[in-house]
Amino acid sequence: MAQLIVMYKTPRDTAAFDKHYFERHVPLAKTIPGLRKYQVSKGVVANPAGPTGYHLVATLQFDDLAAIQKAFGSAEGQAAVADVQTFATGAVDMFMFDSREV
Amino acid sequence: MAQLIVMYKTPRDTAAFDKHYFERHVPLAKTIPGLRKYQVSKGVVANPAGPTGYHLVATLQFDDLAAIQKAFGSAEGQAAVADVQTFATGAVDMFMFDSREV
Repeated sequence: MAQLIVMYKTPRDTAAFDKHYFERHVPLAKTIPGLRKYQVSKGVVANPAGPTGYHLVATLQFDDLAAIQKAFGSAEGQAAVADVQTFATGAVDMFMFDSREV
Repeated sequence: MAQLIVMYKTPRDTAAFDKHYFERHVPLAKTIPGLRKYQVSKGVVANPAGPTGYHLVATLQFDDLAAIQKAFGSAEGQAAVADVQTFATGAVDMFMFDSREV
């Protein structure tokens, strides 16, 4: 199993971000080959000290890191990456790694 | 469902970190009340540009954000937090949020 974590810093217009994210980006990202599970944060992204500068965190699961790399190279993956540029007016941090349950 | 993501920056001594993490911290963290699933990164934590400054990412699932807050307040949660101070020689970033599958 591998995870791709996509962390969106608070955008200029959160309502516009949310509308685009759920109406356009999610359906687009769900077409990415090899995607097994797609979870999105609901409400505040906090740490123990309080709110963070992040508006939304997406966690996408694939079979392994190679599947994530292949997904980025696919037409659907490229379209999803291009779409991010159109709505993510804050910075976007991404992390990908193989993972295992302990 | 809610997630607690714990991201460990590369420590001074990665071998010592790994030994403590898997031999001491994981068994301790697994006693935290309300923990439903505990996944740990395996190998490199990358982004599309290459490696990041993170050595290990843990993803812990709970029923909801309230369960995470309650976990932090428990004796087992406090012990796990205290343990982190003993092996995490790099910075630790934590993020917690309710999430849903899309």
